[in-house]
Amino acid sequence: MSRYGSLKLFSGTTNPQLVKEIADFLGVSVGAVKISRFANGEIYVAYEESIRGADVFIVQSFAHFVNNINDSIMEMLVMIDALKRASAGRITAVIPYYCYARQEKKSAPREPITSRMLADIISTVGTDRIITMDLHAPAIQGFFNIPVDHMTALPMLAQYIKQRNINEGVVIGPDAGSVKKAEKLAARLDMPMGVMYKRRPAPNVAELTYFIGDVKDKTPIIIDDMVDTAGSVMQVVDALLERGSKPEIYLLTTHGIFSPPAIERLNNSAIKEIVVCNTLPLPLDQMSSKFTILNVAPLLGDTIKRIHQDVPISALFD
Amino acid sequence: MSRYGSLKLFSGTTNPQLVKEIADFLGVSVGAVKISRFANGEIYVAYEESIRGADVFIVQSFAHFVNNINDSIMEMLVMIDALKRASAGRITAVIPYYCYARQEKKSAPREPITSRMLADIISTVGTDRIITMDLHAPAIQGFFNIPVDHMTALPMLAQYIKQRNINEGVVIGPDAGSVKKAEKLAARLDMPMGVMYKRRPAPNVAELTYFIGDVKDKTPIIIDDMVDTAGSVMQVVDALLERGSKPEIYLLTTHGIFSPPAIERLNNSAIKEIVVCNTLPLPLDQMSSKFTILNVAPLLGDTIKRIHQDVPISALFD
Amino acid sequence: MSRYGSLKLFSGTTNPQLVKEIADFLGVSVGAVKISRFANGEIYVAYEESIRGADVFIVQSFAHFVNNINDSIMEMLVMIDALKRASAGRITAVIPYYCYARQEKKSAPREPITSRMLADIISTVGTDRIITMDLHAPAIQGFFNIPVDHMTALPMLAQYIKQRNINEGVVIGPDAGSVKKAEKLAARLDMPMGVMYKRRPAPNVAELTYFIGDVKDKTPIIIDDMVDTAGSVMQVVDALLERGSKPEIYLLTTHGIFSPPAIERLNNSAIKEIVVCNTLPLPLDQMSSKFTILNVAPLLGDTIKRIHQDVPISALFD
Amino acid sequence: MSRYGSLKLFSGTTNPQLVKEIADFLGVSVGAVKISRFANGEIYVAYEESIRGADVFIVQSFAHFVNNINDSIMEMLVMIDALKRASAGRITAVIPYYCYARQEKKSAPREPITSRMLADIISTVGTDRIITMDLHAPAIQGFFNIPVDHMTALPMLAQYIKQRNINEGVVIGPDAGSVKKAEKLAARLDMPMGVMYKRRPAPNVAELTYFIGDVKDKTPIIIDDMVDTAGSVMQVVDALLERGSKPEIYLLTTHGIFSPPAIERLNNSAIKEIVVCNTLPLPLDQMSSKFTILNVAPLLGDTIKRIHQDVPISALFD
Amino acid sequence: MSRYGSLKLFSGTTNPQLVKEIADFLGVSVGAVKISRFANGEIYVAYEESIRGADVFIVQSFAHFVNNINDSIMEMLVMIDALKRASAGRITAVIPYYCYARQEKKSAPREPITSRMLADIISTVGTDRIITMDLHAPAIQGFFNIPVDHMTALPMLAQYIKQRNINEGVVIGPDAGSVKKAEKLAARLDMPMGVMYKRRPAPNVAELTYFIGDVKDKTPIIIDDMVDTAGSVMQVVDALLERGSKPEIYLLTTHGIFSPPAIERLNNSAIKEIVVCNTLPLPLDQMSSKFTILNVAPLLGDTIKRIHQDVPISALFD
Amino acid sequence: MSRYGSLKLFSGTTNPQLVKEIADFLGVSVGAVKISRFANGEIYVAYEESIRGADVFIVQSFAHFVNNINDSIMEMLVMIDALKRASAGRITAVIPYYCYARQEKKSAPREPITSRMLADIISTVGTDRIITMDLHAPAIQGFFNIPVDHMTALPMLAQYIKQRNINEGVVIGPDAGSVKKAEKLAARLDMPMGVMYKRRPAPNVAELTYFIGDVKDKTPIIIDDMVDTAGSVMQVVDALLERGSKPEIYLLTTHGIFSPPAIERLNNSAIKEIVVCNTLPLPLDQMSSKFTILNVAPLLGDTIKRIHQDVPISALFD
Repeated sequence: MSRYGSLKLFSGTTNPQLVKEIADFLGVSVGAVKISRFANGEIYVAYEESIRGADVFIVQSFAHFVNNINDSIMEMLVMIDALKRASAGRITAVIPYYCYARQEKKSAPREPITSRMLADIISTVGTDRIITMDLHAPAIQGFFNIPVDHMTALPMLAQYIKQRNINEGVVIGPDAGSVKKAEKLAARLDMPMGVMYKRRPAPNVAELTYFIGDVKDKTPIIIDDMVDTAGSVMQVVDALLERGSKPEIYLLTTHGIFSPPAIERLNNSAIKEIVVCNTLPLPLDQMSSKFTILNVAPLLGDTIKRIHQDVPISALFD
Repeated sequence: MSRYGSLKLFSGTTNPQLVKEIADFLGVSVGAVKISRFANGEIYVAYEESIRGADVFIVQSFAHFVNNINDSIMEMLVMIDALKRASAGRITAVIPYYCYARQEKKSAPREPITSRMLADIISTVGTDRIITMDLHAPAIQGFFNIPVDHMTALPMLAQYIKQRNINEGVVIGPDAGSVKKAEKLAARLDMPMGVMYKRRPAPNVAELTYFIGDVKDKTPIIIDDMVDTAGSVMQVVDALLERGSKPEIYLLTTHGIFSPPAIERLNNSAIKEIVVCNTLPLPLDQMSSKFTILNVAPLLGDTIKRIHQDVPISALFD
Repeated sequence: MSRYGSLKLFSGTTNPQLVKEIADFLGVSVGAVKISRFANGEIYVAYEESIRGADVFIVQSFAHFVNNINDSIMEMLVMIDALKRASAGRITAVIPYYCYARQEKKSAPREPITSRMLADIISTVGTDRIITMDLHAPAIQGFFNIPVDHMTALPMLAQYIKQRNINEGVVIGPDAGSVKKAEKLAARLDMPMGVMYKRRPAPNVAELTYFIGDVKDKTPIIIDDMVDTAGSVMQVVDALLERGSKPEIYLLTTHGIFSPPAIERLNNSAIKEIVVCNTLPLPLDQMSSKFTILNVAPLLGDTIKRIHQDVPISALFD
Repeated sequence: MSRYGSLKLFSGTTNPQLVKEIADFLGVSVGAVKISRFANGEIYVAYEESIRGADVFIVQSFAHFVNNINDSIMEMLVMIDALKRASAGRITAVIPYYCYARQEKKSAPREPITSRMLADIISTVGTDRIITMDLHAPAIQGFFNIPVDHMTALPMLAQYIKQRNINEGVVIGPDAGSVKKAEKLAARLDMPMGVMYKRRPAPNVAELTYFIGDVKDKTPIIIDDMVDTAGSVMQVVDALLERGSKPEIYLLTTHGIFSPPAIERLNNSAIKEIVVCNTLPLPLDQMSSKFTILNVAPLLGDTIKRIHQDVPISALFD
Repeated sequence: MSRYGSLKLFSGTTNPQLVKEIADFLGVSVGAVKISRFANGEIYVAYEESIRGADVFIVQSFAHFVNNINDSIMEMLVMIDALKRASAGRITAVIPYYCYARQEKKSAPREPITSRMLADIISTVGTDRIITMDLHAPAIQGFFNIPVDHMTALPMLAQYIKQRNINEGVVIGPDAGSVKKAEKLAARLDMPMGVMYKRRPAPNVAELTYFIGDVKDKTPIIIDDMVDTAGSVMQVVDALLERGSKPEIYLLTTHGIFSPPAIERLNNSAIKEIVVCNTLPLPLDQMSSKFTILNVAPLLGDTIKRIHQDVPISALFD
Repeated sequence: MSRYGSLKLFSGTTNPQLVKEIADFLGVSVGAVKISRFANGEIYVAYEESIRGADVFIVQSFAHFVNNINDSIMEMLVMIDALKRASAGRITAVIPYYCYARQEKKSAPREPITSRMLADIISTVGTDRIITMDLHAPAIQGFFNIPVDHMTALPMLAQYIKQRNINEGVVIGPDAGSVKKAEKLAARLDMPMGVMYKRRPAPNVAELTYFIGDVKDKTPIIIDDMVDTAGSVMQVVDALLERGSKPEIYLLTTHGIFSPPAIERLNNSAIKEIVVCNTLPLPLDQMSSKFTILNVAPLLGDTIKRIHQDVPISALFD
């Protein structure tokens, strides 16, 4: 037992498969907790083993497949409230995918900053620390005043795609917001970079797609932190082919949100391979063989272990 | 314009009909706000009129018919975050039905007190005050440190049932938790009272229904703050009839949660009339002619007006 | 020494006898602290032994016999402020009787919710956790956002009264608010239940006492969480006898507040035996032989030990 | 009506006479509030007139004559909690004498800083601002993060004593902590100053009184912010006479705490005149003709009026 | 006078010229406040006019020319603390340039997020709202939970440069972080876009400059939110000229931090015109005729007026 | 390793020599941290060794010699923010000299209480506890709600001066605020006491110096917690000599702020010996042989060790 009490791992209902793999990595079993619903949808939680004084890690991805996305948030909040009142020693929320991340600023008057609001309510209920991955905007770390261990799948994605031995590759950021990620991947792969962006020539006129960079006869590797409906990705693919890229296009992403018709679009697209992590539950039965899934359980498991043992985790980035 | 800026009324998506009636009562129009969803279910909000410095009332019942119940909560939180950041002068959350109210204490080890947690997150996002109705447990008022105007439909329900001129009536509390409400109604109607309760003789043995009070040849008036699946109500009805009550049974309730199969059960039951308020959206098309709906819009509208004008609202109780 | 530093037990001035018994149970001595008064009644506190880093339990019942009741509160607050500033490792307030518990909601306009206010000021001064017993309203747990271990004397009371081998007993809740407690005790004793309540027929007319349930030729066991002046209890006793109950009436209660003339009333009443716990200091010299005192020191001591050792305490309820 | 709603003045139970005089100064009546006690001493409060949106001033001195001193604190806290929950517009606590002011620092290990703790709990319950007078240590202002209007009776005391036309006066600070006040008064009166202090030559040896300054054939004017038991004052008087001061000694103080045997001591002392303000309730019937009482009601009333009207109050110091 | 009390405008010591122009725009005078220093550099502040109940706007740019940059922050904090304690009605901090904005996330282990920390300490001292301009990262808005009116000079800069009637222009983002700003300007000017970025081929090897987009025979318009030492700008200019851009290069920026040797570099560079706003005090005497200064006083003044009058400010963006 | 993780000691940039000596006392090395500046003066911090779970002590005196005084504050805040976000186990700020201590109350209208404000922002960024020395006003301890270990150099100073075997000494408090310190020192040395104070006879007339106590033919020992420009000290020295004191005057002080021309004044003054601690960095090269420096490193080091080991530190006062 460490200074923080014994390590306990609990799972919300959204991604039990990932939690099982983290548990296996750690050599522990997933803790027993009853999560059920009242008839009107109110969430009920009761832990079925003692967590008094324990170093508790609760894993919940904010997903909309298994649960409604707001259910997945509320479930985690209720689970943490119960932990706090049952005298858990330390409560770490492991949130492989942090949603509402696209609303991290006001881009029009009288909008919310939902991403900050979510950080506040997670903190309010008694969370002591956060582990998360590839936040849509890195400043979201600063929406918390509790420690955030912000992991990234970029090295894992880069490592994987290196094995494909792509010649004349070019890393593509699909919009202005993804340039920094593209820049980092391009540096790891020692490749050039291209950027897409859109512009509406006039109100009520359709957006046009612009592109800067050179893709002619090159193999594009599109990188984004998350793919939702894949609509933008489809536009990028079209633009790349129009500009003479090679037809073998790769798509790398950490978070496969994959709202319909994402899977259908990607299955049927010109993309050769989609590399995605298992931070979210994935509709495996609908996914074609183009999809490759990278497992983040060892990364998250090792992070949990290091936090529990007060060992630095920055080494994980090397 | 009052000291609090101009009165603005906005509606979440769960009970627009009620909000429309409140607006009509107040002689204002419901404010323009765009509420939409990202593909993965994340809620997006943008107000389409200025709320700078205004005295804003935002009405949202926590219901599961139009929305998932957690969606209806999160929607209100996001709406309030946007109000706060857009410099609303004062933000009053009007919550005709406050959910998670059955979890206002721990009744087993390692349970949450979700009702308090919900109060905390509503307060955290920037709510200045609350209007609500017939909380399941009155102590929930104390879960807030912002002012709560706690209205009750009891006088309205009592007034209505008096018009039925019931002889030999008896007010029935369907469980130990409803005795105080029954006591109050019985006093208003000058009737005696009866109480049902259940007990499990041994682990893994079915609960038995007990009853104290005399219903023989009397007309029972069951009172409860809310009816969810109506399962308990059905047991009460059976018990009443077994004990020789008259067959004309009345059911009064403020909040018609009516999770399936509540409506089916009530439509087909021995109950003669179900009197329910419109604090929640009701499945009108499924409800038989046994149902009578009392309109709380004048009560809530008058409360809003008095708060806006700094006029005492206790007079409303007379 | 546990992870929380060494266990230290300190006593406020209201119930030193109970604290002594808890200390004996734990095999520790009560810590040395000077508690005195300025001439105008201001409380002065100085700990006379180091509490740096220690796991401190401070026991204070909120009583009005030894101290004024507000003195007993303020004394505890001052003691905790000193602990916090002297770097105690963890501060647990053990409050066998939590006062102001009858004000846990507003029952008329412009009333306080003193019970919540008290929870707030206890938390503000730096308390880390609470141990208490048989709160007047269980929702008071939710007035705290720090962990509350809420113990109950019900099993102890039930166990005791079982030894009396009462035939044809009936458990009596003396008002609508005590029905739930009566229900629980009745289940443990496998007895039926009766409920008293009062109603004022018109303004300025005396309240009448109503009763539901059958006590004819039965032995009543009145249960309440606390007995203050015993005025209500006397009315219940009269009503029971009027309705033909056996004359051997029992009264069970956790908290013997016993404001005058409670003891006199109970000594002279028709009640055969009063069973009360020692959560509050009791005026032993005035109490007749009808009184039986159950000792909660083992229960509180064991709870303290388990908290100190991170052992679950739910087992205590079995 | 000002921007802050209508002005309402309420009184705690400790100093109703002062509040009456403030009300007369302001031309308002003291608001109707019911303050009573449960049998065990718990305080109950209910306002009997609307305070919704009002600019409420609640006056309570922390005294031990009418009430126990901790009762007087708790009563104010409960009154403020009720104001907050009843939607008062702004809550100003007028505390003519702020107690626990002698504990504004730790002067030995493991002591509390009760003065800060009291500031915190007053703020926690919902107080918006403070008016007080002659704090024992001026840094206590900084224990609050809400605005504090800190009034002083010094000009009033100086003005009064000037009318005595004392020749060869000397202002005496009775201990090291009162030097700053003595310095200010001496400057206003254009007199020299003397300081008393004590020292214990060795542990368990009686303290000796030391004096610096020259009082020979001079008229001493002792100044202190408060007089409790008057024990120190008696030592000062003896020391002054020993050192050859004139026998006409004056004592000026803002707060007459006057714990027994203060009045007896002062009545029987060599002091010629004791000038004291009515910030605290005074035992008038025991006080001899030596006592002169200065009325702070106009000062507090004017401060209240200026706060209500957003008029600067610094002019009051001139 | 508005609902918020009378409008008062105060100036810190960093940019008095800008504040004077805002005051002229508003038709008010700058309020009287004494700001001085103790010998060791501690800041002393005293307002020389009443601010009780006023709607106070305090303007301070976080600059290092007139003051040390941390002095300019601390000065504002001290000014706000004094406002709060002197009962200002509402306190708006007008921060034309918000520093520490480059540290809005952790980009290496064990770094601070100073931008969030600064937001917290500004909020802690009692600030009610913020007006600022062109934050380096828009998510910084979300570091506050008080309303932030985030103004932009982009329309003003675009409007100005349009008057130059540039043919074949191209908007240049000087690094990956400036792409979004470049994208917005390019859309307003209906021009294409180019992006620079850097990469270090190996540890301890010099960074290389990369460029995507086409500048051949085009007129580059570099846009950045702020220019510090102008080192990066110089690299961009070189890269543009190498890639065959026209020699008439424009540089647009909101915040002219201009740490040495920025002015020298820009004076001597190939850049034809530098357009900069007066959000920060500028070293006018060192700046050559290449510099054009746009005045933000009307924009900030109008924002202040609208906030004071509860008029929406979004119209300012059109 | 203690319960608090391993002990880590880090130094801000103001007093590295003192920190080195503390480290030597503790037998640890000063931790590796990069502290640098952006061109505009923004502070950048990155820890170069793991501090996860560690018991971190960060030492920073608030000085204006090495740094601007506000830089020294901000540097510590930034260092603590980084510690918090990097999951330090416990963060103790060791502040040998706490500045802004002369502003611990309002002494004129509309002033700040900067000393409280500073305490708030230090607490806000995540500091867990404070070690400091000889606060200008002891009530500053109460501005914190985190534990403060308030050490004093008085015993060390008294011990040192005793070795001088001064006959006929008199302890001098240079103003009314220093009387309490003088009283304590005089008691330790068993000497009499004298007090200086100033008064302005009329507005715009120079202050006059007054003195109470007898210094004729005595050796004065002036005591003050800090010496800034030494202007007051010079006036005291003149006054002492005028009143016939012996010419061998001693000056004892904890904090040598020594803003110019303090050193010059003291070097050239009639003072025989100045005894000062090294809580602040001292301009050794300018200081004449009259200066004696007492080392507080053992005192602070021992305090750190005792805190780390949960050993009481009050013994240090003996």
